[in-house]
Amino acid sequence: MWTLEGFASVPGNRLESMSQEIEIGLGKKGRLGYSLDDVAIVPSRRTRDPEDVSTSWQIDAYEFDVPVIGAPMDSVTSPATAIAMGKMGALGVLDLEGLWTRYDDPTSLLDEIAGLPAEQATERIQKIYAEPIKPELITQRLHEIRAAGVTVAGSLSPQRTQQFYSTVVDAGVDLFVIRGTVVSAEHVSSGQEPLNLKKFIYDLDVPVIVGGAANYTAALHLMRTGAAGVLVGFGGGAVSATRQTLGVHAPMATAIADVAEARRDYMDESGGRYVQVIADGGMGDSGSFVKALALGADAVMLGAPLARATEAPGKGTHWGAEARHQTLPRGYRTTVGTVGSLEQILFGPSHQADGKTNFIGALKRAMASTGYVDVKNFQRCGMVVTPHMAQ
Amino acid sequence: MWTLEGFASVPGNRLESMSQEIEIGLGKKGRLGYSLDDVAIVPSRRTRDPEDVSTSWQIDAYEFDVPVIGAPMDSVTSPATAIAMGKMGALGVLDLEGLWTRYDDPTSLLDEIAGLPAEQATERIQKIYAEPIKPELITQRLHEIRAAGVTVAGSLSPQRTQQFYSTVVDAGVDLFVIRGTVVSAEHVSSGQEPLNLKKFIYDLDVPVIVGGAANYTAALHLMRTGAAGVLVGFGGGAVSATRQTLGVHAPMATAIADVAEARRDYMDESGGRYVQVIADGGMGDSGSFVKALALGADAVMLGAPLARATEAPGKGTHWGAEARHQTLPRGYRTTVGTVGSLEQILFGPSHQADGKTNFIGALKRAMASTGYVDVKNFQRCGMVVTPHMAQ
Amino acid sequence: MWTLEGFASVPGNRLESMSQEIEIGLGKKGRLGYSLDDVAIVPSRRTRDPEDVSTSWQIDAYEFDVPVIGAPMDSVTSPATAIAMGKMGALGVLDLEGLWTRYDDPTSLLDEIAGLPAEQATERIQKIYAEPIKPELITQRLHEIRAAGVTVAGSLSPQRTQQFYSTVVDAGVDLFVIRGTVVSAEHVSSGQEPLNLKKFIYDLDVPVIVGGAANYTAALHLMRTGAAGVLVGFGGGAVSATRQTLGVHAPMATAIADVAEARRDYMDESGGRYVQVIADGGMGDSGSFVKALALGADAVMLGAPLARATEAPGKGTHWGAEARHQTLPRGYRTTVGTVGSLEQILFGPSHQADGKTNFIGALKRAMASTGYVDVKNFQRCGMVVTPHMAQ
Amino acid sequence: MWTLEGFASVPGNRLESMSQEIEIGLGKKGRLGYSLDDVAIVPSRRTRDPEDVSTSWQIDAYEFDVPVIGAPMDSVTSPATAIAMGKMGALGVLDLEGLWTRYDDPTSLLDEIAGLPAEQATERIQKIYAEPIKPELITQRLHEIRAAGVTVAGSLSPQRTQQFYSTVVDAGVDLFVIRGTVVSAEHVSSGQEPLNLKKFIYDLDVPVIVGGAANYTAALHLMRTGAAGVLVGFGGGAVSATRQTLGVHAPMATAIADVAEARRDYMDESGGRYVQVIADGGMGDSGSFVKALALGADAVMLGAPLARATEAPGKGTHWGAEARHQTLPRGYRTTVGTVGSLEQILFGPSHQADGKTNFIGALKRAMASTGYVDVKNFQRCGMVVTPHMAQ
Repeated sequence: MWTLEGFASVPGNRLESMSQEIEIGLGKKGRLGYSLDDVAIVPSRRTRDPEDVSTSWQIDAYEFDVPVIGAPMDSVTSPATAIAMGKMGALGVLDLEGLWTRYDDPTSLLDEIAGLPAEQATERIQKIYAEPIKPELITQRLHEIRAAGVTVAGSLSPQRTQQFYSTVVDAGVDLFVIRGTVVSAEHVSSGQEPLNLKKFIYDLDVPVIVGGAANYTAALHLMRTGAAGVLVGFGGGAVSATRQTLGVHAPMATAIADVAEARRDYMDESGGRYVQVIADGGMGDSGSFVKALALGADAVMLGAPLARATEAPGKGTHWGAEARHQTLPRGYRTTVGTVGSLEQILFGPSHQADGKTNFIGALKRAMASTGYVDVKNFQRCGMVVTPHMAQ
Repeated sequence: MWTLEGFASVPGNRLESMSQEIEIGLGKKGRLGYSLDDVAIVPSRRTRDPEDVSTSWQIDAYEFDVPVIGAPMDSVTSPATAIAMGKMGALGVLDLEGLWTRYDDPTSLLDEIAGLPAEQATERIQKIYAEPIKPELITQRLHEIRAAGVTVAGSLSPQRTQQFYSTVVDAGVDLFVIRGTVVSAEHVSSGQEPLNLKKFIYDLDVPVIVGGAANYTAALHLMRTGAAGVLVGFGGGAVSATRQTLGVHAPMATAIADVAEARRDYMDESGGRYVQVIADGGMGDSGSFVKALALGADAVMLGAPLARATEAPGKGTHWGAEARHQTLPRGYRTTVGTVGSLEQILFGPSHQADGKTNFIGALKRAMASTGYVDVKNFQRCGMVVTPHMAQ
Repeated sequence: MWTLEGFASVPGNRLESMSQEIEIGLGKKGRLGYSLDDVAIVPSRRTRDPEDVSTSWQIDAYEFDVPVIGAPMDSVTSPATAIAMGKMGALGVLDLEGLWTRYDDPTSLLDEIAGLPAEQATERIQKIYAEPIKPELITQRLHEIRAAGVTVAGSLSPQRTQQFYSTVVDAGVDLFVIRGTVVSAEHVSSGQEPLNLKKFIYDLDVPVIVGGAANYTAALHLMRTGAAGVLVGFGGGAVSATRQTLGVHAPMATAIADVAEARRDYMDESGGRYVQVIADGGMGDSGSFVKALALGADAVMLGAPLARATEAPGKGTHWGAEARHQTLPRGYRTTVGTVGSLEQILFGPSHQADGKTNFIGALKRAMASTGYVDVKNFQRCGMVVTPHMAQ
Repeated sequence: MWTLEGFASVPGNRLESMSQEIEIGLGKKGRLGYSLDDVAIVPSRRTRDPEDVSTSWQIDAYEFDVPVIGAPMDSVTSPATAIAMGKMGALGVLDLEGLWTRYDDPTSLLDEIAGLPAEQATERIQKIYAEPIKPELITQRLHEIRAAGVTVAGSLSPQRTQQFYSTVVDAGVDLFVIRGTVVSAEHVSSGQEPLNLKKFIYDLDVPVIVGGAANYTAALHLMRTGAAGVLVGFGGGAVSATRQTLGVHAPMATAIADVAEARRDYMDESGGRYVQVIADGGMGDSGSFVKALALGADAVMLGAPLARATEAPGKGTHWGAEARHQTLPRGYRTTVGTVGSLEQILFGPSHQADGKTNFIGALKRAMASTGYVDVKNFQRCGMVVTPHMAQ
């Protein structure tokens, strides 16, 4: 849908520094990649009081108390929970291709999905999402969020951006998210005129967050389109299903560190433009959330952790866009259970040590244990690699 | 059964480049090997529309829409499913030492095998396969497939090739497959005059696919016999049982990459003969299928995935030649279940994200995500190694 | 709570020798870390009789027959079990912020905690420990232990040391333990005047054991405060919960070896002061206990192994300070069962080969198998790394 | 019990070649070790007919058709099964400290042990083995085996060798086995005059097999005592329990390769004396058995595989000397089940592909697949290392 336009090549020294390549077999090399479970934070210097720590972050003109973004998934972010997240200092992104823009009132469908037996869930979800998207519902949902006085953010897939973006922009969003499993700056299509992503972002007045990207090169090219933020990962909780169905996978710890390095290099080549790096997918507990920030993310897009809220529209179940693909679903409706209110998940108190509640408390304590006072500096903290350790 | 004849030695620089040897103990080195689960595909450049992608491949004069070969196993390929596969653009290879050449009508035996309790299955299978092979049934089965107008392919083990090949050739096959657990170009026997594989293939008018080979040297020698294709792996779904019983194992990712490199070198030394590399065994989901192609295979021989078809003769169970060995079985009759029609397994639509249906849709999407338009170019795609990751 | 004061920096050559760093992703490195399960002892030289082996160790003026310290956890060390441990040649450390200093008679609460259903345990424990600490009970408990004629040791968290240390010192302790998840020599606080750890230890007449520290730098700084011993690890059995909630983790084998090296370097820079290295946490069986000593620990603080004693106050359950945090618990009350008397756990006989009894017998036999006669020399024994081995 | 006497030191270049040491932590290195599960055999050259393969081996004047030694464990080798093994071309070693030398007729005790509930087994076994050893029963048992016309072999622990060896020698054995968890050439004892192993072996007319040794140095020293064979490993099936209780472990693949290298070096320094290397412990299936030989073992001492015979005295259960230690047991009585006759376990036919029957058939097929005609040459076969592969 979009095409390459005069991108300079990746700096040679970068590619050479990708040194941890190993030989899979004769004539085929692969780079070693690490998941979030493979790494951990090691305190080594001073400590601080958790109360002295700031967790705020900023993208374009919008500042947030906590570096948490509710994923554009129908089990996580509805207009109501987007508003709730906003009031708590986080950001909720509404999926503008989800149930809320296909149905006037999807609440009974949400109930039905939550109640489906596991083995029938995908097929029924495919049917429910076959209903067309209504532009007027896009407008209506964004207005609802706007009316509550919080930052308004909506998400489209790359495939639908051309069709619906003007509706979205006219309705008014503060942040525009283009999110797919794999999004490249250079998309080639024989079927239709591809969207020129660079021109599109340049023309748009609204800051754009775009992804997923999973390595240095892909991310650098997305940064050069003018995006305000880049999503790292292949989206949602569908990591293992994507690996099983497509053979495609990007270990998150390596991906986040790579994209953070692309940000540093792009900042240099652009004369100082700082692109937000947002880890997206696979952070199921507060420990993974904290590690993603320590590896270089500025904020984290959370799915399953927020789907466990009592207010969550998924009512203890969770699914993403991958699960509704009409011919090649790459995700499941999973059962995640309910562990507490949205506030408790973000700010505690916890009554279990399972990393499912008090994400911000955990972040503050990890920062305090390593002596950092803000999220940006926390990206420099020391880490250990334990790939062989049973989790 | 066959003997070496004037093979040049392996180029020295190749052996030296097998650099990832590690010391198992003093005086014993081993090379690090990677399974398909240890590796994954990482998108990094452009993307494409899945519809713009071609999945065709060709061996000798025969072209196929999809790089899928039905394994010569009685649970997968009967005359009927060989025809069905052919009509869908794939190739089905009939096991010419299986039930269809031992019995006039094996359908009740197939039913019986599918219904056996697990602990009795091997012993009963050994008995059923003790029935002698009837040459006239070989002829009859191949004629049945021929009559349907699809490409005709049949398989013999190295041990039976001498005895039955003239029957096979007289009956008429388009592709002749010699398939064993380990097949070498140089077989030494004190008991009988060994088959000279090079002379055999030279004399035969029919293109030959031969294997399993599991590394560079073995594959290069097989290529030098004049084979049109080489099977990579130790055959069927018996990988773990072969390791447990014999201690023999070849991790597939490494094996495929090695044999692909042998193809490159053989193309050079032969002045341009391109030998098809066919991954055989252990690809149980579409992700593994896609990765095998990404590692250098031109096509993939599928067992378990096709045994899960509603039309499959195994009726939800699956076994190979290893399981019927009279004194040292190295495989099981396993229960694989039924997930959809053959067409759904190859082309979708999927209603589960488990990689068991829509193999070609998955391949097209993976190719689109990495920006390649045909299978040959897809062999160059970038990969990541995550040996420590729980699957 | 405490602040840095004129610490010299870490010797440059040390930092350079931390050579096993690997690239997690571009621009982010991490050091490879090993758990106790990843390593093992390999006999290679002479052997000895187990009876010829000495297991004694000494800290300051206090000598003990066995290098075992009962952890300051209410499930392990009560005044009664501290006395029992002392009489057996070990050391028991009373948690001075535990139930015994909050309640006149906590026995019914201990019973209640042991009987709680798992899912309610944390919340009820949080409530029980919300009761304030009574200074007069600190005094009373320490007097009870003193009266029995054994070495008296009590533990405070860094947060409470300022508030209660004079009570502790006035009551009389032989060894003063400051124990927290992460304790640094340099703590920065905006809220209150931080405790100057170096001055504090200098002014105190009592030898201080302080920790947890998890690497060379942190431990070296703690040694420079004048501590008699340093605790290695993040405390208690909460290792996996700390990783899951905070993303913080220090593999124990690596941590112990690092801190032992800090001891060597500090001994050099201090002109001969030997600081005791005490492994703390995660040693659930006698094999881990033995390996901790082989890696360089002088003594080991045991939690779960002693909580399995018939006399243990936890009555077959086990929890630490991490489990009672009011808003961010990082540990559980676990069920560890009861395996024998305290004496049997330390000295046998064993009637199971599960490493849960006869810790000292196991240590003696391991020392005998490798030919060492005392714990200090045993620190030089050969080890093997098997990170890929299923446990 | 025995003492060093003028052993030359290990050649310097050997120690330097132990190159795969890695840093566990600062100042503590460990060598990477591999288990049998971490490695596999890879065919790469010619193939042969399994019928052309010889599996014979020889120690001193005694030749055997198959490289299998029945372990001196009461669940495996009784006088009756020692005779049966001998008649099948294997060697059975009677434990001369087992039930057969403590009781006139232990059959009812064997029945009792086989029927004990798991949790009571160790304690009851400790009591049963508390009965003293009767010298006259040693004599009687060895005479029984001698009378059957097979090679006679008996085993003592290092601790009992001084006390009973003259009884054993007077009774007449062809091969004398000294087997302990860790046996060193240099044992230091303050309690009693140690046995001088070198002088002992020199004075004895009978060839001695001695071990366990687990690395190059220990094995080389044992070879220098004049032993005819060295046992590699820590004995029996107690590997994981030894690791759990003592922290002691030697990964078998590395240990076998190391000891095989010691054999090569000792052959050089001794002017041609070839010491048999016998892998002992942890080979539970035929795949592991085959790999042990491929790594350099001349023969394999089998426990659990032979305990699964219908004739086995353990009647489907299995235990070794480690399980009967009076105060520190390091092994269990495990349930291994019964899979077929001794003959079927050694020579097939198999009716399951689980590696529990037809060990010799498996060995012959593996040798045929790699093109070797005898066990000695098979030690040169190529191997692959797959430490990360799930088993």
